[in-house]
This record gives sequence, C-alpha cells and structure tokens, in this order.
Amino acid sequence: MPSWIDGQPMELLSVKDRGLAYGDGLFETIAVKAGNPVLLERHMARLGGGCVRLLIDLDLALVRAELLAFSRELGDGVAKLIVTRGDGLRGYAPPQPAIPRRILQGGTQPSYPACNAELGVRLFPCATRLAEQPLLAGLKHLNRLEQVLARAEWQDAEHAEGLMLDTSGRVVEGVYSNLFLLKDGVLLTPDLARCGVAGVMRAELLAQAESHGMRCDVRDIDLDGLRQADEVFLCNSLYGVWPVRALQRHQWPVGPLTRKLQAIARDLLDS
Amino acid sequence: MPSWIDGQPMELLSVKDRGLAYGDGLFETIAVKAGNPVLLERHMARLGGGCVRLLIDLDLALVRAELLAFSRELGDGVAKLIVTRGDGLRGYAPPQPAIPRRILQGGTQPSYPACNAELGVRLFPCATRLAEQPLLAGLKHLNRLEQVLARAEWQDAEHAEGLMLDTSGRVVEGVYSNLFLLKDGVLLTPDLARCGVAGVMRAELLAQAESHGMRCDVRDIDLDGLRQADEVFLCNSLYGVWPVRALQRHQWPVGPLTRKLQAIARDLLDS
Repeated sequence: MPSWIDGQPMELLSVKDRGLAYGDGLFETIAVKAGNPVLLERHMARLGGGCVRLLIDLDLALVRAELLAFSRELGDGVAKLIVTRGDGLRGYAPPQPAIPRRILQGGTQPSYPACNAELGVRLFPCATRLAEQPLLAGLKHLNRLEQVLARAEWQDAEHAEGLMLDTSGRVVEGVYSNLFLLKDGVLLTPDLARCGVAGVMRAELLAQAESHGMRCDVRDIDLDGLRQADEVFLCNSLYGVWPVRALQRHQWPVGPLTRKLQAIARDLLDS
Repeated sequence: MPSWIDGQPMELLSVKDRGLAYGDGLFETIAVKAGNPVLLERHMARLGGGCVRLLIDLDLALVRAELLAFSRELGDGVAKLIVTRGDGLRGYAPPQPAIPRRILQGGTQPSYPACNAELGVRLFPCATRLAEQPLLAGLKHLNRLEQVLARAEWQDAEHAEGLMLDTSGRVVEGVYSNLFLLKDGVLLTPDLARCGVAGVMRAELLAQAESHGMRCDVRDIDLDGLRQADEVFLCNSLYGVWPVRALQRHQWPVGPLTRKLQAIARDLLDS
C-alpha cells in the first residue's frame, strides 16, 4: 500500500526534512495483525519517551489515530512509523517552533526461514562495536550507521543475526534484535543505559516473565557470561523469539524457558 | 534556487531513501564564490574517503560534475551536497547493488555577526558529549543527533558556538566548527580518531600552517590544556576563522597567529 506522510498518501518527502539531514527523528517497526498494531501501547510509550528525550513536540494522539487508520487499511503486515523534527533551515539548531512530520510505510510480514524459530539461529560475531552514548541509549532513533555497518559484515544465510558488543566489550544486542539469556533460573538481559535499542518485545517479555513469577535481572553482561548461559535467545517485535544455538564454536541448547517465552511472543503476534 | 536530486531540479525525495531511514550517507557544506566551489578538492577527497569507509559505491566524477554545474547556477552562496546509499528495502543490510543518491541544496551565505570574526566568540560549554566511535570518527555522515542535542542547549546570542567534549572528557570540537589552539608557538588541534568531524578548513589550515613553517601537532587535548593555551580559535568552511575569547570565566587574548590564519582563510573564501 502507499506510504502516508502527515496523514496523506504520498511517496515523496521534502528534501529539507531533518530526518534526512541529521537523522533527527525516531521510528517504530510495528507488526500489524487483522488491522491492529501489535503491542501498540508499548510502541506509543517508547515513541513518546523518545520525543521527550529528543525535545520533539509530537502530537501523540494524532500519530496514534493515523497509525490505527493506516493499520486498518494494511490488514496484515508491518507498519513502519517514522517521526522527524520536520523541515529545517540551515544548521543544527532545532527550528522554533518545529513541526514534526509523521511518515507511515506499509509492508508484508518478513518471511524468515521457519528453522530460525524451530532450531535456533547462529550469531555472526560483528566487529562493529556500539559507541557508548547515554543521551541516545535505548532510543529507536534514526542514527543507525552502526547497525548498517554491522549488518554489512556478513552476507551468508548461515547467520540469521549478528552479535554486537559495545566499545568496552560488553554484550549489548543483535543488529535488529534484543538478547536474553537464562542463567541458574534467572532471566538476564543487557542493561541499555549506554547504548542499544530498548525493544518493545524485550519490555513485553520482561513484564511477562515477571508476571509468571520468574526472576529477571537487567545488567551488564560480558562474553564469558554469555558463553556460560544455560539458554540464549533473541527477540523483536516482528518475529517474536528465536533461540540462539551458536556463536562461532560455542553452542547452547534450546531450553524450556526459551520455548515458553517463544510461545508467549507467538500468542501476542498471532492474536 | 531549486534543489537537485540526481542531477534534476526537484524538491521531493523518495520516502524509501536510506538517508532518511538510517542516516545512511554523508554530506558536505561548501562555500561557493563566483560560481566556483571553494576548497573543492578537499571536499571531494573527504566525500570519497567517507564513501570508502561506509562502503558506498559513489561515482565521484559524476558528483563533481553535478556540483560544478550547480555552483555555476548558484553563483555566490552555500551548496550543501548530500550523498545517501539510495533507496532501500526493509532492513539494515545495504541493497546489492545500491544506487547512491546525490542531493544538492543551495542557499545564501550565512550572515554571522561581524564581531564574531573581529572580536572573537564566547563558547557555550555543551553538556552533550560525543560518543567514541572510531568507525565513524572524522566522517561528515548523516548521523548528527549529538550535534542537534548540543546545539539545542543554548538559544542566547551571546554564545556563537558550543564546545563539545567526548565522553572521556577530551576537548574535541565546536558543534559546527573545528578547534585550534596555540601553545608555546605550536599550533595544536584535537585528534579526531575517536569522534568529531574532520573539517576541510581544518585540513587546509594545517597544511597552510605547515607550509608557512609553523610547528603543528594533532593530539589529545583536555580542558586544562585548552585553558592554558595562548590563543584559541575555531574554523569551518563557511566563515573561515573566529577567534575564541571566552569559555565561561576563562578568557583568551586574540593573538597574532589567529589573525594570520584568519587572513589566510579569508583569502581562500574571498578568492
């Protein structure tokens, strides 16, 4: 279906948009099922929080209404919502007032190999490290050159995802996924205070695990800690959960907790 | 004058452009005098080097020809050249092959207060720090949220520029300028191996200073080193050189070396 810009069908954007000039904006990639955005509240909450941190004065009610209308037309697939600070004049200073721009793009559900979810995936060890920038950490902003460089490191189909460390060597995330591990019965995921994208599926799985009585911890994790995990899995808001079975020579079993959270994610995405 | 996209007058851009989606590209801001781009070779060299590092397969001869034709039409002013990896499908993986997009935007020469160059400027101490990312350091890429946040820290006219440190506290640059200092007869400028934009005027002034027999050094500089400098100045490819006279309570005199390099920059920009 055609894209929408500021609520109108349109495939072309002002060349003055600060999203192009500076990556001055945020985005959300949203699974849409039967005309409904999945995990809508979490997507809206992350977008709203990102706008506060980037000082973008967005009308969230308007964006929500446009997203709901767009999703109804899309039916089933993926809605990508981009919010930018809008057109700019010359220079980095945000215009006063700025008029944020909303962009919605629709697509089909990506067709990942079924074996990713069934047998688990192999992680490519990315050499591209994530810089530590607390002011942008957690946000799904439009400055994504690190992910572009990391994803360009491998082309083979053997690796479904890549593992990204920060410049201090901590384990952070996949290129387009968050990472969890299970160790001694505790569900662990890297702290994203310095870098990384705080995914909505990550937040949902943490909440679900806690509501199921599981012990959860968000903290720094190094490569040794990752290797010593009992189970490892990835998640995002489109594919749900993929077990991780290997990183180079190291292998992990696909365990029961991964399967349990995978089923929870599948229920969310198939609902 | 109208913008050019891929050589054609056009104000609208494909909403699928990866410059918008990921900041996946580079830019140059180029002074144009009497139809000629100033410091053309340095701009082209930086752009070409950036494309190599970002794996963008750009036809540099084509871009040069378009820039020259655009500058002839512009006459006097500023040409902003943006190069992106072009349209993308879903996901971070660069399309194979990608078709890079060239965007040219024209504007008038910015009208800075004459006192900036004559009396020197006061630096705002930005709280926004630059993350250390060697893979992107030096490039004038489109991921510029740090500069947007830094420039949003002050609105008063008393501060013409802001000083940016890296997350380790080293002195790096201005928000839209490079920084030089003179200490004991040596011209110093921060090493940009971890972060910062390697400006074309910075490169030109280093080369000119060396050709005038001055001792130059590119190295790490901390705030104490900055305060103890005999002279401090900023530069970029539009305004040339501005002396720095103050950072908070600390003041520097406007010295003879700053004036000498300012005259050299003025000759370049007025030629």
